Amino acid sequence: MSHTGKELTTRLDANGTLTVQLRERTWEAPKGRQVLVRMEASPINPSDLALLFAAADIENATYSPGKLVAQMPEAYTRVASARHGLDLPAGSEGAGTVVAAGDDPAAQALMGKRVACVPGTAYATYAYCDAAMAIALDDATSAEQAASSFVNPMTALGFVETMKAEGFTALIHAAAASNLGQMLVRICQEDGIDLINIVRSDEQVKLLQDLGAKYIVNSSEPDFMSRLVAAVSETGARLGFDPIGGGTMASAMLNAMEVDAARDIEFNRYGSSEFKKVYIYGKLDTGPTTIAGNIGFAWELAGWLLPNFLAKVGPQVAGRMRARVMQGLDTTFASRFSDRIGLGDMLTREAVCRYAARRTGQKFLILPNG
Amino acid sequence: MSHTGKELTTRLDANGTLTVQLRERTWEAPKGRQVLVRMEASPINPSDLALLFAAADIENATYSPGKLVAQMPEAYTRVASARHGLDLPAGSEGAGTVVAAGDDPAAQALMGKRVACVPGTAYATYAYCDAAMAIALDDATSAEQAASSFVNPMTALGFVETMKAEGFTALIHAAAASNLGQMLVRICQEDGIDLINIVRSDEQVKLLQDLGAKYIVNSSEPDFMSRLVAAVSETGARLGFDPIGGGTMASAMLNAMEVDAARDIEFNRYGSSEFKKVYIYGKLDTGPTTIAGNIGFAWELAGWLLPNFLAKVGPQVAGRMRARVMQGLDTTFASRFSDRIGLGDMLTREAVCRYAARRTGQKFLILPNG
Repeated sequence: MSHTGKELTTRLDANGTLTVQLRERTWEAPKGRQVLVRMEASPINPSDLALLFAAADIENATYSPGKLVAQMPEAYTRVASARHGLDLPAGSEGAGTVVAAGDDPAAQALMGKRVACVPGTAYATYAYCDAAMAIALDDATSAEQAASSFVNPMTALGFVETMKAEGFTALIHAAAASNLGQMLVRICQEDGIDLINIVRSDEQVKLLQDLGAKYIVNSSEPDFMSRLVAAVSETGARLGFDPIGGGTMASAMLNAMEVDAARDIEFNRYGSSEFKKVYIYGKLDTGPTTIAGNIGFAWELAGWLLPNFLAKVGPQVAGRMRARVMQGLDTTFASRFSDRIGLGDMLTREAVCRYAARRTGQKFLILPNG
Repeated sequence: MSHTGKELTTRLDANGTLTVQLRERTWEAPKGRQVLVRMEASPINPSDLALLFAAADIENATYSPGKLVAQMPEAYTRVASARHGLDLPAGSEGAGTVVAAGDDPAAQALMGKRVACVPGTAYATYAYCDAAMAIALDDATSAEQAASSFVNPMTALGFVETMKAEGFTALIHAAAASNLGQMLVRICQEDGIDLINIVRSDEQVKLLQDLGAKYIVNSSEPDFMSRLVAAVSETGARLGFDPIGGGTMASAMLNAMEVDAARDIEFNRYGSSEFKKVYIYGKLDTGPTTIAGNIGFAWELAGWLLPNFLAKVGPQVAGRMRARVMQGLDTTFASRFSDRIGLGDMLTREAVCRYAARRTGQKFLILPNG
């Protein structure tokens, strides 16, 4: 039996034209380990926005029912040549009900169940998902509660796992007032880990203070660097996570850690020999990453991506992390949604300009069958 | 019994004044594991120049006998605040004769011997050195032959050791026509390792061709990136070493490796999952390091420094490497010196402007007692 509905796709052509649209489509019966999920709730994560619109000029786009046509800057269009001409589905994760399942017992076991899932195509009426990437929910858990149970929770937990595996004892996090950042504050409180939160406004400082965060540094203040160095000295942090990517945030973290590490040693022309590391896990700023100033030679800057991390640590660690998330869906890993919109309303000018603005405290939930 | 002679020091004051001078000093009897070496030959390595003059304006400096006073750019002066007001000795390595030794048997065993050594203060009539950082030479080996037996040979060998330890199978090297680069070409030929040499002039292409290098890419050519990608495809290189540091060379290496890694996979918004790494092991360009373009998230950029590497691999690996170097001093690890100057002539305008120019094929040897 096939199912019909709508699916959102995003396409970038070589001439820089970005077309995001909702189109009718049919889903045939799933095979093997696949299940077909009727999607009920799916969050808009920053990484989803990066795929949907990237750097396109959405304010001056042309909007028609279920369709948006915008112009992409030439620099991004060139770098993203691998996606030219492809209609890409979107929506990393969500929750819904399994309406059809492949022959494999793992798929059959989920038939009829409400699940949290990571299909990568969640902005649609239905989505195929591998049974391994879907988890059955108990009756007390709503689709909305489970919609954001993978990307942000597993990423935030992944930072702590990475910290421990690599022998660090404290963390720096940038863009720390994000939904993910708030989760990280709660995880570090539970686990007794010192966390330095870098934010960029007084409003965000207040938000994290209300969560009980201890170390908060505002990058918009003129004394940002000296306050970052002071927090690094207090915590001994030698590991940072930066979702901004472009610009100098990663450099600021490395600079601050080097200043602290070199403070008490005799002058060494090559800087301190204490190891410092920053992971870039997003590209909120798609421009170049600039490393400036004195960071010595005992440092590492690296990309961090959830699928690569999970592949590296293996299913046992991933399973343990997933179980902790499901236990804490109402507490540590709760996402608070400020706005809920139907799939059909996703491509209006008003909606796009609001959710693409990524304001602090705003978090959108898509209701594909709402 | 004390010894007297001259020692070169470099000093940067907070106002940006750089003073490099030769001064009389006395060396008292060494203690414990220390030996006192009468220095006979010491090379000028790029890392020595970085300490001696850094970014100072040596052309417009004031020269007087045994003394140079120059102005340092404000940006460097600020970054290098840790060395303000310190008279720092210089000269990483060299060779000479042990004229006094501490009580420790390791030191006593070297008494009267000609040694290769790594004192860090080699631009002087005498230098103290820990016995562990001095190796006795056989009678057939001259001080000149052994003067450069540590920094460049151990660094080049360290790249190959790093490659093997981290599971890579081929290398990219920038500024590849350097003395160190030529050694790396010979090591890789001996060990059957594919090496991509990035140079910046036709003269340097020719130099490496004459050495039998197989992959040579000229970064001054307009098709540099496409030729780099082609070489990366042929060799499967996923590891690079960059002594330039500032600018976009590290980025170019990561970009080329990502293009090759992503070539045959389905479009992935996060880039390829194949791991790519670049080490920065020098700062020939002291400006910011810029990472631009699409490199995905499976990458790492790190500092590489010989002392940190040796501390990590431990004395057994270091000893094996050192033995290979001493075996090949006349062949694989031979340094060819174009110029020899006495310590007293090191600070004339003519000499400084010549050796600080770091021209391809030019390599200076200081003869502190010549």
